Amino acid sequence: MGGEKKKHAMTPVEEIDLSAVKYRPQVVKAPHLTGFALRFFVWLVEAPPFRSVILSVLKRQNGIPKMLEHTLIPEPPMFRPEFPPQAPEPGVLDVGEDKAPPARVASALGCLPTYDPSQHWSKEAGMPFLYWTIRDYAHAYRSNLATPSVVAERIVSVIEDFANREPSMPLLISFDAEEVRKQAAASTQRFLEEKPLSILDGIFMAIKDDVDCCPYPTRGGTTWLHKTRMVKGDAVCVSRLRSCGVIFIGKANMHELGMGVTGNNPNYGTVRNPHSVERYTGGSSSGPAAIVACGLCPAAIGTDGGGSIRIPSSLCGVVGLKTTFGRTDIKGSLCDGGTVEIVGPLAATVEDIMLVYSAMSGSSPADRNSLKPPSICLPNLASSDNVDISRTLKLGRYTEWFNDVYSPDISGKCEEVLNMLSTAYGCQSLEIVLPELEEMRNAHLVSIGSESLCSLNPEYKNGRCADLTLDCRTSFAVFQSFTAADYVAAQRLRYENELNDSHGMT
Amino acid sequence: MGGEKKKHAMTPVEEIDLSAVKYRPQVVKAPHLTGFALRFFVWLVEAPPFRSVILSVLKRQNGIPKMLEHTLIPEPPMFRPEFPPQAPEPGVLDVGEDKAPPARVASALGCLPTYDPSQHWSKEAGMPFLYWTIRDYAHAYRSNLATPSVVAERIVSVIEDFANREPSMPLLISFDAEEVRKQAAASTQRFLEEKPLSILDGIFMAIKDDVDCCPYPTRGGTTWLHKTRMVKGDAVCVSRLRSCGVIFIGKANMHELGMGVTGNNPNYGTVRNPHSVERYTGGSSSGPAAIVACGLCPAAIGTDGGGSIRIPSSLCGVVGLKTTFGRTDIKGSLCDGGTVEIVGPLAATVEDIMLVYSAMSGSSPADRNSLKPPSICLPNLASSDNVDISRTLKLGRYTEWFNDVYSPDISGKCEEVLNMLSTAYGCQSLEIVLPELEEMRNAHLVSIGSESLCSLNPEYKNGRCADLTLDCRTSFAVFQSFTAADYVAAQRLRYENELNDSHGMT
Repeated sequence: MGGEKKKHAMTPVEEIDLSAVKYRPQVVKAPHLTGFALRFFVWLVEAPPFRSVILSVLKRQNGIPKMLEHTLIPEPPMFRPEFPPQAPEPGVLDVGEDKAPPARVASALGCLPTYDPSQHWSKEAGMPFLYWTIRDYAHAYRSNLATPSVVAERIVSVIEDFANREPSMPLLISFDAEEVRKQAAASTQRFLEEKPLSILDGIFMAIKDDVDCCPYPTRGGTTWLHKTRMVKGDAVCVSRLRSCGVIFIGKANMHELGMGVTGNNPNYGTVRNPHSVERYTGGSSSGPAAIVACGLCPAAIGTDGGGSIRIPSSLCGVVGLKTTFGRTDIKGSLCDGGTVEIVGPLAATVEDIMLVYSAMSGSSPADRNSLKPPSICLPNLASSDNVDISRTLKLGRYTEWFNDVYSPDISGKCEEVLNMLSTAYGCQSLEIVLPELEEMRNAHLVSIGSESLCSLNPEYKNGRCADLTLDCRTSFAVFQSFTAADYVAAQRLRYENELNDSHGMT
Repeated sequence: MGGEKKKHAMTPVEEIDLSAVKYRPQVVKAPHLTGFALRFFVWLVEAPPFRSVILSVLKRQNGIPKMLEHTLIPEPPMFRPEFPPQAPEPGVLDVGEDKAPPARVASALGCLPTYDPSQHWSKEAGMPFLYWTIRDYAHAYRSNLATPSVVAERIVSVIEDFANREPSMPLLISFDAEEVRKQAAASTQRFLEEKPLSILDGIFMAIKDDVDCCPYPTRGGTTWLHKTRMVKGDAVCVSRLRSCGVIFIGKANMHELGMGVTGNNPNYGTVRNPHSVERYTGGSSSGPAAIVACGLCPAAIGTDGGGSIRIPSSLCGVVGLKTTFGRTDIKGSLCDGGTVEIVGPLAATVEDIMLVYSAMSGSSPADRNSLKPPSICLPNLASSDNVDISRTLKLGRYTEWFNDVYSPDISGKCEEVLNMLSTAYGCQSLEIVLPELEEMRNAHLVSIGSESLCSLNPEYKNGRCADLTLDCRTSFAVFQSFTAADYVAAQRLRYENELNDSHGMT
């Protein structure tokens, strides 16, 4: 045994000297494999005797296991993100978690600046490209310029056209034109009777394939999951949105089981980035992001446990909200047993995000008991002092991490946006330091991996691993190697990181 | 791959038919080994290639792994016990969690019936054996019948006598006569000045060796742990008790690292049951239970994650309180990163438990934020309607489990006690059903084992396993085999069990 050399004791949070934290760029060492070599590699990592050897080499190269096994972490475990005590914010409006979704949407609508229909509805030609927002549709329906049924026909024809396009654009995994027409007809009827359910009535949205939405199966991007896991009803977020009149166009494409950030899906084809069809959308909510980015729907619903809303939103140039853990109810999705995943909206504008979020928000009864979140607030942009709200916003930037990207084009563009936010809205940009980034990555991987494996273990151990795509199989082979003590250590790191985050602002 | 045969789907809690639950007695199949055979077995289970084979055989015989890997558990994970919403209880008094410990003790004292000194302090001879309670000592100190320093001398001489007795009675692992005398002198001085800190001033207590108490090292019953984990100060519960004037006599013996329920400790000798020196005290809080049972101290502090207070209290005929998770602050003990362990009092009477518990109670700041426990209440036994309080007590009994013991002598004696509680105090005894007992046992083992291993992993992986006793080494070898997905599955079972417990009353 190697004496005391291997042991490492972590600094308690309150003793960390932020000025001494050194940024270490992440260097990933992994074999580049395709075709037969990849298949052979996957076969090896799935065979227990080879797995442990291969993974221990790969993990050692990337510093994964030693860290969790050999580190004394002074903090107790924090198994789920918590809501720390928080001072009341100025300029915000409580949307009322106890109210029905349409009433919450009405509150959110009251937070938006007055709607100006002339941008989309003026007769002038030559307008620049603008996404149609929820209020654009709402205006059209209420001014008899269009009906949900008319829009439904356009959407159905675009989806059918996309299916035959070259290169292909498999936006949806499940789609039923008659189902879309049926929902649209019901909405059209409500407008005829002048009884729309909310500003979201007749608004078309797509939902990621890992969230239950009747009458569609939930495949999670796989070819088989729906055969073993029956959909018993709408997920909570779907039923909340339906109660506001939302029309679901179908189940959006995604990275298989959310186990990747490219959106590459060999089972149903890979959605391409609408802004540049030779590029990825990012993932795992690839379909939802592409559907919003190409203007087919003003909003879509995705899930995010490690960037699955944030990454494709960024790559597709739309807005994605990774809601605070526990703010939305994830019941009825494939990841409803996890401690990192949330369900959240993607949309073309921040205003639309506010409307959709207010409809789908609300903690689960269990989370309300255990996490006791404070009330849900939105910035009151309609108030005359709304400029002050953005002036109170602090944007943290860890410059070394910010600049650690493939090309300075990327960081340069991000820098431009930060400067725009600062000059146009007066947001403050602050330099921050995030210590233990590498440890955080490990802790996150162990958490999300173990929780995903636990949900799928009965299927996986029953031979279903062979039915997964090769990148998913590799991920699950890695997840199988995590020990229970690794998992607990990861939760101790989570506690350390939550505290660091609140101390990190300098 | 074995088709769909291995997969098992658990019934959602609300669909369980309690009348159909069948009790299955636990049958443990394990080799009976001693001496060289035991050493060889431990060597084998610690060597990775042999370990997996041996453990998979042992686990298969005892039904452990299949359950967690192959079962679809419909509930989300519950990582820590939570406080469900609760109706206010009648006849109880809020001890005031925000108050200082001496003020809480005063509240608790107000809940006790009037003290009658004649039981211990009458001049009559031939009284039956009675434990000296906290109020007996308090009365003596306040009536100049004794001083803490006088008692200290008696205790010191008894402990020194016990050390040389045959058979040996190693009650304490760390003991310093001068330290005891110093604390007693300070207390005596306070009585001289008529300024005792609380009813607990001058009360002698022992503390289990896994809780930090200056100036002693915390060995946790091992021979080496104190060399790698320094004591930085008193544990929270110790400092609360000290602020009430409690005198700590030393660190009480225990099962090594709490990893067993007999109290057998080859490092420091095994504490014997004071009622019958040929019998075990039970464990892991063997020392605290024996110290109270032999009358040396009116109370002691133990920890309990799987019966470690409850088992030795029962076997030694004293009262042990397994406090509700999160009610006491376990910071400064070896198990302060766990989700099952608590720190709690052992005493000779329920009244003394109330006094000690009120002093040491109070959630940690983190638990108060995350668990948000309701206020701490004690039964107001001083109130004239205290009979009504015991009449509202419901004692649940799962008869088949209750009777599943080594000898009917045991269940018969327990039955007698239940009947006494019913006739003397009017407590109701209710028949209950606890479904999924076997699953619960597995989930508990995986939780406590993984959390213990995580805390010790840096030492363990650094070669310290060889310094543990053989039963501890076997336990840790088993814990090493638990996967992260097993751990998450165990937390899903915890959720299921918490719900079952609240539904189980019929």
